[in-house]
Formats: sequence, structure tokens, C-alpha cells
Amino acid sequence: MTHIERPLDVVILAAGQGTRMKSALPKVLHPVAGRPMVAWAVKAARELGARNIVVVTGHGAGQVEAALQGSDVRFARQEQQSGTGNAFLVGADALKGQGDADVLVLYGDTPLLRPETLRALIADHRAQNSAFTILTGELPDATGYGRILRDAGGNVERIVEEKAATPEEKAVREFNSGVYVMDGRAPELARRITNDNAAGEYYLTDLLELYRGEGAKVRAFKLDDPDEVMGANDRTQLAQAEGIVRQRINTAHMKAGATLQAPDTTYIEDTVTLGRDVTIEPGVILRGQTRVADGVTVGAYSVVTDSVLEEGVVVKPHSVLEGAQVGTGSDVGPFARLRPGTVLGQGVHIGNFVETKNARLDAGVKAGHLAYLGDVTIGAETNVGAGTIVANFDGVNKHQSTVGAGVFIGSNSTLIAPRVVGDAAFIAAGSAVHEDVPEGALAVARGKQRTLEGWSRRYWGGMREQVQKKLPWLAGWLEKQ
Amino acid sequence: MTHIERPLDVVILAAGQGTRMKSALPKVLHPVAGRPMVAWAVKAARELGARNIVVVTGHGAGQVEAALQGSDVRFARQEQQSGTGNAFLVGADALKGQGDADVLVLYGDTPLLRPETLRALIADHRAQNSAFTILTGELPDATGYGRILRDAGGNVERIVEEKAATPEEKAVREFNSGVYVMDGRAPELARRITNDNAAGEYYLTDLLELYRGEGAKVRAFKLDDPDEVMGANDRTQLAQAEGIVRQRINTAHMKAGATLQAPDTTYIEDTVTLGRDVTIEPGVILRGQTRVADGVTVGAYSVVTDSVLEEGVVVKPHSVLEGAQVGTGSDVGPFARLRPGTVLGQGVHIGNFVETKNARLDAGVKAGHLAYLGDVTIGAETNVGAGTIVANFDGVNKHQSTVGAGVFIGSNSTLIAPRVVGDAAFIAAGSAVHEDVPEGALAVARGKQRTLEGWSRRYWGGMREQVQKKLPWLAGWLEKQ
Amino acid sequence: MTHIERPLDVVILAAGQGTRMKSALPKVLHPVAGRPMVAWAVKAARELGARNIVVVTGHGAGQVEAALQGSDVRFARQEQQSGTGNAFLVGADALKGQGDADVLVLYGDTPLLRPETLRALIADHRAQNSAFTILTGELPDATGYGRILRDAGGNVERIVEEKAATPEEKAVREFNSGVYVMDGRAPELARRITNDNAAGEYYLTDLLELYRGEGAKVRAFKLDDPDEVMGANDRTQLAQAEGIVRQRINTAHMKAGATLQAPDTTYIEDTVTLGRDVTIEPGVILRGQTRVADGVTVGAYSVVTDSVLEEGVVVKPHSVLEGAQVGTGSDVGPFARLRPGTVLGQGVHIGNFVETKNARLDAGVKAGHLAYLGDVTIGAETNVGAGTIVANFDGVNKHQSTVGAGVFIGSNSTLIAPRVVGDAAFIAAGSAVHEDVPEGALAVARGKQRTLEGWSRRYWGGMREQVQKKLPWLAGWLEKQ
Repeated sequence: MTHIERPLDVVILAAGQGTRMKSALPKVLHPVAGRPMVAWAVKAARELGARNIVVVTGHGAGQVEAALQGSDVRFARQEQQSGTGNAFLVGADALKGQGDADVLVLYGDTPLLRPETLRALIADHRAQNSAFTILTGELPDATGYGRILRDAGGNVERIVEEKAATPEEKAVREFNSGVYVMDGRAPELARRITNDNAAGEYYLTDLLELYRGEGAKVRAFKLDDPDEVMGANDRTQLAQAEGIVRQRINTAHMKAGATLQAPDTTYIEDTVTLGRDVTIEPGVILRGQTRVADGVTVGAYSVVTDSVLEEGVVVKPHSVLEGAQVGTGSDVGPFARLRPGTVLGQGVHIGNFVETKNARLDAGVKAGHLAYLGDVTIGAETNVGAGTIVANFDGVNKHQSTVGAGVFIGSNSTLIAPRVVGDAAFIAAGSAVHEDVPEGALAVARGKQRTLEGWSRRYWGGMREQVQKKLPWLAGWLEKQ
Repeated sequence: MTHIERPLDVVILAAGQGTRMKSALPKVLHPVAGRPMVAWAVKAARELGARNIVVVTGHGAGQVEAALQGSDVRFARQEQQSGTGNAFLVGADALKGQGDADVLVLYGDTPLLRPETLRALIADHRAQNSAFTILTGELPDATGYGRILRDAGGNVERIVEEKAATPEEKAVREFNSGVYVMDGRAPELARRITNDNAAGEYYLTDLLELYRGEGAKVRAFKLDDPDEVMGANDRTQLAQAEGIVRQRINTAHMKAGATLQAPDTTYIEDTVTLGRDVTIEPGVILRGQTRVADGVTVGAYSVVTDSVLEEGVVVKPHSVLEGAQVGTGSDVGPFARLRPGTVLGQGVHIGNFVETKNARLDAGVKAGHLAYLGDVTIGAETNVGAGTIVANFDGVNKHQSTVGAGVFIGSNSTLIAPRVVGDAAFIAAGSAVHEDVPEGALAVARGKQRTLEGWSRRYWGGMREQVQKKLPWLAGWLEKQ
Repeated sequence: MTHIERPLDVVILAAGQGTRMKSALPKVLHPVAGRPMVAWAVKAARELGARNIVVVTGHGAGQVEAALQGSDVRFARQEQQSGTGNAFLVGADALKGQGDADVLVLYGDTPLLRPETLRALIADHRAQNSAFTILTGELPDATGYGRILRDAGGNVERIVEEKAATPEEKAVREFNSGVYVMDGRAPELARRITNDNAAGEYYLTDLLELYRGEGAKVRAFKLDDPDEVMGANDRTQLAQAEGIVRQRINTAHMKAGATLQAPDTTYIEDTVTLGRDVTIEPGVILRGQTRVADGVTVGAYSVVTDSVLEEGVVVKPHSVLEGAQVGTGSDVGPFARLRPGTVLGQGVHIGNFVETKNARLDAGVKAGHLAYLGDVTIGAETNVGAGTIVANFDGVNKHQSTVGAGVFIGSNSTLIAPRVVGDAAFIAAGSAVHEDVPEGALAVARGKQRTLEGWSRRYWGGMREQVQKKLPWLAGWLEKQ
């Protein structure tokens, strides 16, 4: 929307250790709403159309770089953690074609900063012909932050750190977020930052002075919502950030026409799309590349990952779907488990305690109860009885089976793969099918019933004392025999 | 409680489109806590003892009328949406016996307005001999609402709409909710409302002037809680309303003696009754005509619809019940699914991964694991083994089976319906029972075991390479053979 | 941390009825975060190193005493509920070796009072050589509480009850929590409390006057957070207390290095320990003596009680564990149910709809689908096929089975206990194993397959009309035969 005249380079500082996380995982890799914090910064950079994205790594560099691998991101390692000024310089050195671009500095631990906000920052920077623009916020009490000091004319004069601030300066409510957009001189100017201070660190804020020394225009751009630059430094802050991101996502879906019955307990990653008139019951979790079409209902406490729910699908409560496609008008659950490679046609019915994996079920198939369907294709309108198991594993390999259309599989049957069952075949309940079944044939693979009259009397009579103690009804019955 | 001297007629305006819902469903049909918004208004009208209830429909009139069908509600269609004044007139024309009754105007999108509040409004109206009483609220900032202007004596003078208000008028905090109770002249006076204004609409607020023109007494009755007249215009507001209704219901149950361990994640529809010393764990959903007796525990994340839980029942976590009756002292779950037509006697035990449907289980029946019991009656103290399935479907029809009392059904058995199993019969594990079993008899319907020594060596030896790669333990075992 | 020079005796007043609970359970036994309220007071007393702990019981005394049984707690019954002064006296009389100890008065319905706070109260009492120290709090509006009145020098003068307070006294914001620590004279002085007042009750607050009459030093110690002395008098307050306790526990875990994705819907009892880099998904409930080692993930909506999860374990969503030990690197669920006596070795896989009970599964065992494993030990790397059931019950007794290592149990098999299956044995799918299986042997215990060609045509043809109505695909197929 903003007309961007110059290229934009982005340097993301992600070298910090984050000891307060108390974790073996580098701070910036802790996920917020399913995405590592630093990846939120990379995503924002991409959405801004950045030409170069450089991530400055340090603590746990190998892990961070592995997590972000992708052709458009480059890495620069800060060998010694000697301050943000040095970190930026390390990153700036890795930029290509520097000098012609604006440079935006972001952080690996501020997942709440929205691309819209950054777009406005950059637009203001350019519209005002600023050389150095600071993203600032305002808080009733900005304790802990560097404060923005302005001259009588309201122009930014300098930033004073908490510990160096006078009582009057501490009363200033405008604070420095640490996010800057700068003109092409930044990488060069950053070389002049020194560590000639009490801490012996290179501070990126020194750039302000250096720009002013050049007579360049320095500005501040104030955030509407200071939460956006909240850093997540421990896991309580991580949880807060997670909550804010979730709320943003949920609100957007509601505004667009989805009913979330209990948004406070609904967890939707930002990679998920929802159609209109979707109903999401309490406690639902939607993750990854999940696409939910119009008119779908997702029942309470269901967890859906990387799945496609076509129009009008009803997922009943307590279902777990991963990598599944569910055709128009199908219903699934409760207590269904669809695993990767599941493809359900239109109007398929999957009931409770049913698991599918690498299974294609054509239109109208019904598998209502207690079944495992793995490595199998099943033709249209076949009825899969309760307790049916496709025994796809021989101890070493998985085998593929094929069941035709219009087949009736009796309850508690086992299909020993690889098996082919023809169209309209009929499998008697309780069968362990170990030979293929031709079209239209009946397969019976179970023992014939023998009935022994009077047997119970002997059986229970043989342990009469225990029966008397534990099974009063049977004890009474025994008496009468 | 209030002595009502005159009949009450209620006109519910429910013709609006609600474009911000972004829905194929008319706004007033969006549910809040399980009931369409407009039905909350109808319910309130009923609780007030209304003589006539007229719902004015317009957008999606057919759907709205279908959803509200019930002998005590009449409908009036507003053909053109030309303002609330016209909508009221359309509704008033459908009132019978008008003139002798007070007329209350309600809305189809304010589900939070409580009958108690309306009762107080009407009582005040009558006690004060008012002709036209406006339900008002007070907000720190009433932007968007019409403001109530009063004269020096505190009497209501007029209502000024937001866009016509002067800055001083905008500062007024008392706002018009749009809810009015009026004497019997209202239908007649409403005919005099004109659309002689900028928008060309008929405004119901004009009635105030008309009543004043009659020299009639006009009053305002102020709400304690302005939230009650919050309209739900988009789905974020819908979710807010849902949350407020749920909180009201939960608080009432807690005050009456139920423990809700986590009321923020407990969802109880207002049609549900709870006894004393009921414990509701986190995440429970109770819907419809559900009755929970004293001392019941409902475990976490269970979803119970239209079911009866008798005294002392324990529903363990992750159970889904619908249309079930559960007898005193029974326990169910976790991961149980009771479907409609389930009737459990006293002290029945239903364990994990068990489904029942149209099933009567008498006192003391145990079905602890992985079973499907459909279309069956089971006598007292029968033990249903793990993996038992009643195969009730022949591809076209469902059949009914009967199992006696004190029966022992061995694990992984299948009863092929229609089947009759007599009292104290014994079914051997793994049987597919295809003939009836007399009282006291043993049925064995499985293959006899053959054991082939040394077979595993040949089997695994035949795929030795794969075994060596994938099954180290078996590879080691093979070496030793 | 505090140096405690004198012994400490604790009297816990727990005799009240708590009618607002509307419960058959005495108020002080209502649980907060899994522990009866009065037990929170006992726990605090223990953490303070109390020499004597006396609980004064009255309403429901038998129940309260039964709930608290433990060698270090003694009980004193208050026969008539004639005020806190009398209750204290009853408790004090049960103290042994009185006179040399400080005496702390606690209550059975204030579960939020933290031992740290009490430790600070006692430390202040001792450091200041106080004889009688009142724990006070400050509220913007302390209506309902007794107010603390101080003299010009800031010294505590007296406590005025709400109903006796003048308007100026009512404006006092410092209130009496009812918690006191007193020197060894308290039991003696308490005998002098009279019921010479309007209510005819003995008030413990009278001790203040009595101490002052002795010329003893009286002080107040102010709480930072007045919520700590919140009493839970009805179930809404109970739910609030529950929420606050949960939040405290969750925050402590987050600060210590656990990720709670949604702390508002995470329920962890304070008996549970979590390692570092544990991830807790939304809706998880952890109870009792549960120990979660480093790097574990507990999936959404799982309920884990009294279980040990070793390093790196993954519990997938919707699992219910109780009394289970899960070995390093194992994965469990979704929809798994581990019952008491379950011991899983390293790298065990338990999949969906699987139940274990009193079952030892050695390293590498896989039971992926729809199984019941009860009263069984299974050797390393055995594969348990889908639908396997160990039939451990003969109608009266449970029997134990043993399965060796490297066994392959085919799908839908039943092991009829007591059964011994040797190492590397192979059980054919669909077998009902009723004889032991030697090492390396194959067991087949199912019927042989018979296949009847053309049967389906006759079967469906026999109910052609119904097929035509209900099974269009089969009707079409029939036409073509």
C-alpha cells in the first residue's frame, strides 16, 4: 500500500542468550503460536518486501540458523556478545548492495510487532525524509526502558538509559523500543560506535548521536499500542505474547464471519484459513496448513493439524486430525483419529474410536466404530463394520490392501494385508480374511459355533465359594439349578 | 412478584440484516449459549407472562419464523426496512385486542436483557402511571447511542441522536436502549410517525414526542448494568454475549451449591439443572435437557447433551453422552460414548472406548473396554468382555438382540444380531456368535488353536536382511537358532 | 530462613458450618486445587515447623478429622459454636507444653495464605518483641471487616467491628484478617474472654484488650496482598481461590523453565514437579504425585495423575494416565489410557484407543491401536497388533499372562489368560490363543476361510426392494448381475 521508493534491508538481532528462559533452547527459538519468535521477525521482514534479510546469531547460532533455513535469509554470527551496536555492525556487513537501501533493525524476541506497524513506520520515515527514525511507545510508567528526550520544539534530542536518567527524565513516558529504520549511511556510521562506556559495550543507540553529528534528520514514530514491542524474556512473558497473538488471530476470524464460541480457549495458528459460517466450539486447536471451508463445524477439544475440511464437514468433539482431507459433507468423530494420508470423499462417516492412516475412503463409506484402517483404499458406499482391522504390518513391512465398492465388512473382521476384496463382496462378522475375496463373493473365516448346554452350571459350580462371595446373582442362579 | 394489573403485549423487532455478522444466517438466529438471539427475547416475553408475542421479521423472515415456531408466537413481516417506527407499526398491527394492554418493545439481537430487569421496568412504568417509559443506561462514554435529555426538574424531555447532538449533548452519559414500555395508545400513535427526516426513515423514538403531545407522562428507567442492552452485531460481540450469559449461568449454579472447578471454561446451557454437591471439572459442556442429580461428578472435557445423570454418578474425563440415562452410582468413561436410547441401571460400569446406542443395561452390568453395544438389552450383572461387538446391522436393517442376566461374554466376541443369549450363559473369548445361546450354556465359536513349533525361525529367516536392519532383537535371536 | 528462637504452636479454627456453601460437606473440606481448604492451613503450619498443630473442629467434626488424619495433627472439638474466642480456647487447651511457645491462629477457610507470609509475620513478631501481632491488610473499601484503629503514634489501639464502627472508623482501610501470632500467655488470657456482648459470643479479638491490660506490646503486620486472607465462603469464592492458587503454581513453573502454552487453562496441583523445557499444551491437568522430567511434552487436554514421565516422553493429546510410569523417550496417545500399575520401558509406543493396567511393557514394545493390555508383562520389542486383547478375567478372578520379547501378535488376537507366550513367537491375526505358545512357534487359532462365489447376488437380491431404496450403488450392481 505504501509506495516504497528505496529497497529495504532488514537486520534481525537474535544473538542473545535469554537466561531467564531457563532453557536449552535459544530464546529466539521459543515458539509463540506455533512459530519461533525470531521467525515472526523474519515473516514481518518478508511481508515488508525486504531485499535482504540478515539474522545476527550468537547464542545457539547453529540451532537458530537451522530453524530459519530458507533461501531468502542470510546469517551473520556475532562471535562476542559485546552489545547491540556490534551486533548490528556484524549484520550490516552481511548486507549486499548496502548504501542504497533503508535499513530496518528488528529483534528476535518481539513477536508481537505487526507488519502493519512497521509499514507505517517506514512510510513515515520516508515521507518525512528522516535519516534515523525510532519506533517509540508511551507507557504510564516506562521504568526499565531508555527514555526519549525531546527539545522544546518536540524534536528528538537524545535517548537516556534508565540508569543514567535524572528523576525528571525518568518521568518521561515515551520510551525507545529499539526498533529503528535508517537511511543507507547506517552501516558506515555504525563503525564509529565505541565501547567507551561503563559497561564496555557497543550501544546501537549511539547511532542517534552519530546521525545528529551528520546534521541528519532524526525522528520518532510512536506506536499506538506499546504491547507490540513487548519482549518475551521469560516464559510468563512468552505465555502473554502467545495469548495476545491468539486473540488477534481469533478476532480477525470473528470479524470475517466465523463463530468462535469461546475465543479465550480457541487456539488457531496464523497459517490456518477459515471460511464463512464456520463454527468453532470451545477448546479447539487448529494448526499448520489447515483449511476450513464454509459451513464447517469443528467440535469441542478437537485438534486439527495440516488438514483440509471441505464445505459442510462436521468434526465432532474430541477428534484428532493430522494431514487429512475430509470431503464435503462428511462427518468425523467424536474420538476419531485421522492420520496423514487420509483422504475421505464426500459424505463419508467416521465414527468413534476409529483410526485411519494412509487410507482413501470413497464417497459414502461408513466406518462407525472401533476400527483401524491403515494403508488401504475403500470403494464407494462400503460399510466397514465395528471392530474392523486392516492388519497392514507383517513385522517388517506395511502392505497395501484394496477394498471395492459396496462391500459389507462384518464386525470384528480382520483383513490381513495385502488383500484385495472385490466390489459387492460380503465378509462375515468375526472373519480373519487371509485370502482375496472376489467380486460378489462371501468370505467366512471364523470357527463354527458349538453350544454346550449345562456348561455354566459346572463352570460356576466349580468355584462356588467365590461365586457366592462375589457374584450374588449367579450364586442365586446356581442354587436353582 | 410484581402485581400486573393490565395485560402485556410484546413486539420483538427482528427484521434487521446484520451484515457485520458476514453470514448466510439472519443475525437474530445466531445462537448465544445454545439459543438463537431472538429466542432469548421470546423467552423473556414468555417469562413476563405476555398475552401476545409478535415477532417482526424481514431479512431471512422464513428462517426466523421456522426457528421460532411455537403456538404462542405470531409473526408480522416488514416488507421494506424503512425504520424501527415502521417495524413497530407492522408488529402492532398484528396484536390482538390492542388498546387495553401495555406494549413492550424488544429486539432480536439483545440476548443479555434479563426478564428481572424488564419486570422492574414494567413495574416502575405502572407504579408511576407512566404512558411511555424508556429503558436507559449510563456509560462513561455513550458515543453512538441516542442521549436522554432531561429538563431542570429531571423529567425526560427528548432523545437526541448521536449525529444531531451538540457537544454538550454528546457529553450526556444516559443513553436510550431502544426498549420501551408504553400504554395502549402506542399502536395508534405509531401511525403518526413520519419519515420526514434526512434518512427518510420512520423512527420509533418519535413516539416520545407524540406521547408528550398528548400530555402523557414520559419517563426513563435506568438499568443497573448497561451491558444488558448490548447488541450483538458482529461475532466478537456475539462471543462477548456468550461469555456473559455463561458467566451468569455458572454463578447461579455455584451460588446454589455446585462446585465448578474452572468456571471460565465451563459451558452450561440454561436448560440444564444441577443438584447439590455436583462437581464439574474443567472444560465440561452441558447442553439441552440435561439433568444432573446430587453428588454427581462430571469429569474434565466431557460433553453431555440431553441426558440424565442420577445421584452419585461419576462421569470420567473425555466422555460424550447424548440422550442417555445413567442410573444411580454408575460410572462412565473415560472416553465413553453413550448415544441416544442408552439406559443404564444402577451401578453400571462403562469403561474406556465403549459405545452404547439404543441399549438398556440393567443394574451391575460391566462393559469396561473397547466395545460397541447397539440395539441390545443386557440383564443384570452381565460381564461384557473387552472388544465385544454387537453386530446389529445386516447392510440394510438394524436388528435387536437380548442378553440375559449373569452372562459372561468373553473378550473379542461378536454377537451377530438378532441374537438371544440366555441367563448365565457363557460365551468363549473370540467367538462370533451366530446361533442363539440357551440359558446356562457355553458357546464357543472360534477356531481351534494349532501351534507350529520352529515356524518363527523360518518366517524371520526368510527376510533376514530386513530383520537385521529393522529388528535388532529378532536378528540376535535368529543368530542363536 | 528466619531464625526461630521459640517453638511455634498452631491452632487452626475449622469448626464453622459454612451454610453458604450449600453442601453436605463441611466448608473447610471443600477442595482448592485438589486439597481440602483446611489442609492448606495444616500444610502451612507444617512448613513453619510447628511443634503442635491443633485443629478445632465442630460442624462435621468426624469428616474433618478423618480427612486430616496424620500423626502430627491433633483435634479439639468445639461442642457449641459460641465464637472464635471459645474455639481458640478449646484448641489452646489441647496444646501440650504451652507457655513456652508462640501461638499462631489460622483458619480452615483461607487457603490463599502463604507460608512465606506467615514466616514474615512471625519474624516480625519476634524481632519486635511483640506479645500479640495481628496480620492486617489494606483495602480501598474494607466494608465487612473489623478495622484497625491506631493512636497518633501509629500504635495499634483497638479493633472495631463493622457494626460498631463510626463513619470515620468505617473509612479506615486497614482491616483485621483474624490471623494472630501471640506469645505463650495467649491460652491463659483467652480464659478471661467473656460473652458479655450483644451477640452473647466469645470474641477472640478481645485478646487485644487483655494483652494491652497486661501492658504487653501489641502490633499489626500488614500483608502486601490482601487477597491472601480471602475466605472462601461460597462456591464462587471457592472458584476464585482455585484460580488464584492455580495461577501461582503456573507462574512458578513458568519462571522455572516450563512452557505453558495456555496457563489460563492449565491445572497443576502443587504436589507435581516439572523439569526444564517441559511443554504443556492447552487444557492439561496434572495431579497428585506426578513427576515430569526434562524435555517432556504433555499434549492438549491430557489428564495425568500420580504418574512419572521420564525424560523426553511425549504424551499426545487426549490421554489419561493414572499411576503409570513412562520410560525415557516413550510416546503415548492420543486417546491412550494408562491405568495404575502400568510400567513402560524406554522407547515404548502406545497409540490410540489403547488401555493398559497392571502391565509392564519392556523397551521398544509397540501397541499402536485399539488394545487392552491388563495383568501382563511383555518383553522388549514385541509388536502388539491392533485390536489385541488380553482376556485377563474369568468371571471371578484376574489372571496374569507373560509375553516374551520379539513376539509378533497379529491384529484382533485374544490372549486368554493365564497365558505364556515365548520369545519370538508369532500369533496369527484373529487368533483366540487358548494354549501357551513356545518360543519361536506360530500359533493360529482362527477358522479357515471359505469363499462362496456369487453369494452377494443372492443375499442382496433377497431384499431387493430395500436395497433399491437404501443402497443405490448395490442396486445398480445387482442390475448388472
